[in-house]
Amino acid sequence: MYRSHTNGELRIDHLNQEVTLAGWVQKSRDKGFIIWVDLRDRYGITQLVFDAERTPQEVMEKARKLNREFVIQIKGKVIERESKNKAIPTGEIEVLVTDFYILNEAKTPPFTIENETDGGEDLRMKYRYLDIRRNPVKDKLIFRSKVAMEVRNYLSKEGFIEVETPYLIKSTPEGARDFVVPSRMNGGQFYALPQSPQTFKQLLMVGGLDKYFQIVKCFRDEDLRADRQPEFTQIDCEMAFVEQEDILNTFEGLTKYLIKNINGVEVENFPRMTYDEAMKTYGNDKPDIRFGMKFAELNEVTQHKDFKVFNEAELVVGIAVPSAGSYSRKEIDELIKWVQRPQVGAKGMVYVKCNEDGTFKSSVDKFYDQDDLATWAKLTGAKAGDLICVLSGETNATRAQLSALRMELGNRLGLRKADEFAPLWVVDFPLLEWDEETKRYHAMHHPFTSPKAEQLPLLATDPGAVKANAYDLVLNGNEIGGGSIRIHDKATQAMMFDYLGFTPEEAKAQFGFLMDAFQYGAPPHGGIAFGLDRLVAILGGQESIRDFIAFPKNNSGRDVMIDAPARIDEAQLKELHLATTFTAKES
Amino acid sequence: MYRSHTNGELRIDHLNQEVTLAGWVQKSRDKGFIIWVDLRDRYGITQLVFDAERTPQEVMEKARKLNREFVIQIKGKVIERESKNKAIPTGEIEVLVTDFYILNEAKTPPFTIENETDGGEDLRMKYRYLDIRRNPVKDKLIFRSKVAMEVRNYLSKEGFIEVETPYLIKSTPEGARDFVVPSRMNGGQFYALPQSPQTFKQLLMVGGLDKYFQIVKCFRDEDLRADRQPEFTQIDCEMAFVEQEDILNTFEGLTKYLIKNINGVEVENFPRMTYDEAMKTYGNDKPDIRFGMKFAELNEVTQHKDFKVFNEAELVVGIAVPSAGSYSRKEIDELIKWVQRPQVGAKGMVYVKCNEDGTFKSSVDKFYDQDDLATWAKLTGAKAGDLICVLSGETNATRAQLSALRMELGNRLGLRKADEFAPLWVVDFPLLEWDEETKRYHAMHHPFTSPKAEQLPLLATDPGAVKANAYDLVLNGNEIGGGSIRIHDKATQAMMFDYLGFTPEEAKAQFGFLMDAFQYGAPPHGGIAFGLDRLVAILGGQESIRDFIAFPKNNSGRDVMIDAPARIDEAQLKELHLATTFTAKES
Repeated sequence: MYRSHTNGELRIDHLNQEVTLAGWVQKSRDKGFIIWVDLRDRYGITQLVFDAERTPQEVMEKARKLNREFVIQIKGKVIERESKNKAIPTGEIEVLVTDFYILNEAKTPPFTIENETDGGEDLRMKYRYLDIRRNPVKDKLIFRSKVAMEVRNYLSKEGFIEVETPYLIKSTPEGARDFVVPSRMNGGQFYALPQSPQTFKQLLMVGGLDKYFQIVKCFRDEDLRADRQPEFTQIDCEMAFVEQEDILNTFEGLTKYLIKNINGVEVENFPRMTYDEAMKTYGNDKPDIRFGMKFAELNEVTQHKDFKVFNEAELVVGIAVPSAGSYSRKEIDELIKWVQRPQVGAKGMVYVKCNEDGTFKSSVDKFYDQDDLATWAKLTGAKAGDLICVLSGETNATRAQLSALRMELGNRLGLRKADEFAPLWVVDFPLLEWDEETKRYHAMHHPFTSPKAEQLPLLATDPGAVKANAYDLVLNGNEIGGGSIRIHDKATQAMMFDYLGFTPEEAKAQFGFLMDAFQYGAPPHGGIAFGLDRLVAILGGQESIRDFIAFPKNNSGRDVMIDAPARIDEAQLKELHLATTFTAKES
Repeated sequence: MYRSHTNGELRIDHLNQEVTLAGWVQKSRDKGFIIWVDLRDRYGITQLVFDAERTPQEVMEKARKLNREFVIQIKGKVIERESKNKAIPTGEIEVLVTDFYILNEAKTPPFTIENETDGGEDLRMKYRYLDIRRNPVKDKLIFRSKVAMEVRNYLSKEGFIEVETPYLIKSTPEGARDFVVPSRMNGGQFYALPQSPQTFKQLLMVGGLDKYFQIVKCFRDEDLRADRQPEFTQIDCEMAFVEQEDILNTFEGLTKYLIKNINGVEVENFPRMTYDEAMKTYGNDKPDIRFGMKFAELNEVTQHKDFKVFNEAELVVGIAVPSAGSYSRKEIDELIKWVQRPQVGAKGMVYVKCNEDGTFKSSVDKFYDQDDLATWAKLTGAKAGDLICVLSGETNATRAQLSALRMELGNRLGLRKADEFAPLWVVDFPLLEWDEETKRYHAMHHPFTSPKAEQLPLLATDPGAVKANAYDLVLNGNEIGGGSIRIHDKATQAMMFDYLGFTPEEAKAQFGFLMDAFQYGAPPHGGIAFGLDRLVAILGGQESIRDFIAFPKNNSGRDVMIDAPARIDEAQLKELHLATTFTAKES
């Protein structure tokens, strides 16, 4: 045993005890006759003191050579500090060192191992093992571990069984792109890494396991957007003999439990909102309801004058921005530029300042009179001192633009509080969504989602209008979970594949095992999957998932620390019955 | 909600309650005026009764059409059974059905869904979702889930943090063959799936996480032996600032906790044995010490006569088989044939019957007298009525052969009791092992294992004699865990790579990140990994791991249920910058 105590453990009641500590040199202050060293480990920092009067001379000399991040083991006695440090739990004591050993030396690290580091993202990722020594990263990994454990505690208590499903499965062209794994033993054939254990968890329900969960890695070979990882972790769940209501209640229970046990916050029952309502009210299927600025559709009260921009728009929609009526012309111009950025894409923005005296000043005063503007204010809920922002155009695009503006203003106005939790169920998602590129319908959730039974006839006449038994759990403007009640009979599943453009042969080749399974007594079932990386980040009050992942990949899917992916031997390729056709000049 | 109660829940105190149940039809007995149906779910079986006097006529008629594995939902009243079934918890009651719905029909399953099924292995694997409905499989999956949860409970309580390490890593030629994953975004390059998170967990120690664990899938592309899977699960653990003793104590604690909480058995402190002693005493580095039959080396007491076979042998070694002295000539001949099977490979076997009257009868009576045989009996510990079996030849081969015989006899004699737990630490493994094929040393554990410090000088003169700080945890003759104290300084690690035949360039290309990490303050550290599949099987009293895995692969690495691996699209291959070179006539 290299230590009798950790560096977070010693208190005033350990006074005069002989202790052995080990850890990293955080910093060292050499005052000549006295040297202080902060010794750090996972558990905290303990101050060591080397004192010319009480510490042997040769130990003193050795101590002068200690550099940052040296790993040492010390023996010494716990003494009371003269100037106490109330900021840390060990701040009342220090350890007078009698002897120490250098367990390992350290080169000067490429960035400072401090809460606020001087290392940029690239450097931190290359030396991730040093980055992890920093409290902000270490604490996030510990936090993640705690959340995962609480998820397991809750679900186990509720009778869920964690079942490991296979990682080497079969590639299916539906959905995102698979990562594949060539098989050496089955030449010319490939496994795929799972995008989710979807079909396996459904088969477990057919197998009678009743309540399944798994915290599991999933893989998607997509062009990476910021904060997306090629491998990510899901809390994957499925239940048999349930209706949508049962799933919502069960996982509302889990989410409440987490927010209470992790954050110490009690949340009331979760509100529910249909997809249509969310889109209409927030322009978004994952609205942040911690703050207002609800959308008001203004077509009826704007399209009666000569303002062509509004008259030709499919949708005219506005929000009232609280206390922004005092924005200067410059600030408003900046907002207009912000919505015109290519990432948002609005053509322009109409605004109305609601003056404190009850009058209005708008950018469209020549088309609309005070009565018009008062009506807009009423509909958007704008009060004196607010600013009304109005966008117009094609419905979906305009909603997305105004939603982006609403979120941006929510951030700017400090309305998105990290310690406030506003969960929301969004329900009744459309079954299908039209894809302009391929000119066909795709499954909005996935092809195993059941349509609302009463809407089945609509499939033939107006497929886009059919709603599914699908739901998302939204927390603070982020989708943290999503799921559905599944199809559990072969005929409906075959019909869905047909609608999605599968030939019967393709459906059989890819999902024959599932449709077979449905013929041998499949129970009604449904489930949900949470994105653990995202969930943990939100519970931790952060927007970025990256530091909640021990070894994340960069936006090119590379692990810059181990330098992967990498070339492999020709012999290895040959064994796999493969040749690479890559011909770039360098790689 | 499809049910008010599960099928394992109703008792006599639910009498007269109106209940709703759902589940599968296990079987149906139609006596004309009365029909009994056993309704099954994960939780148990409830007997339903349809009774011409009390059940509506049309419900009665519908009930006659129920076949095995139909999924139904019933409404009814709990009544007392006339003839109670003490064998099941719900055996005192039955439910008089008033109405029911067929939730899903079922084709006749390809094998019976009973504890003892008529389905062979292949059929069971193809319809694994039906196989899982059977109690023996379902119970094993639930058991596995429970073991994994208890592992997490114990390690969390001990301050271990579960950290997820990446699955898309880098291929290294050391050790077993990697599964690789072509990268689309990094043309011509590949990820590898981890054979274990070894280097990552070491980096977490360098990162100061101190106590890490993870229950994690690992992958090895090996030619599969029986009961080996290409993907398997490890309980992977690592600790910093520890010596071997700390690791042994910590994981002895875990194992005791599991045996107590899972099996209800208290185990004393685990005995320890060096590798050398295990090989000498049991011919095996994972001895089953639930029974005796220890090896006695007989060279000194056999090589003084004219028996050439023994005189020329490097090792003459025997065991005393309890109460086998009465074996007939035919039984002994069968044993000799058994050791001569190619899987065992002995040339022959010498035996000595220890008669009840104190005399001996051996197959080598013409070379050895009664005094000789009495000496053998004394050394092997044979008593009157026992049989001494003696093998001879090259040391390693002979030990392996006698070990195989010992285990076989342990099975035959019923000495390997499923409810008895005999853990054992095997310590002081050799650092290196000689590979005849490549004519060089390989790391016996892995290249990161630290040699015993005091034996470092031996590396230059007698590498094979150097022992490592490596240990295995053996339970009932199975290695359930293995680990080591790691090298934590760059110089020693570089030296190890050199001994293992890596050029400095190769070492840098493959493990440069680890050696870099060792320069920035790496603490002393070590760890262990348990094979979860095996551990669960042994705690469950079974030898085969297959039914403790929800969806195992067969010996060709195929999932016969989903039919994977499979061919993928040319377009998919092209995107991955790959061409297949496989040219078999069919595949």
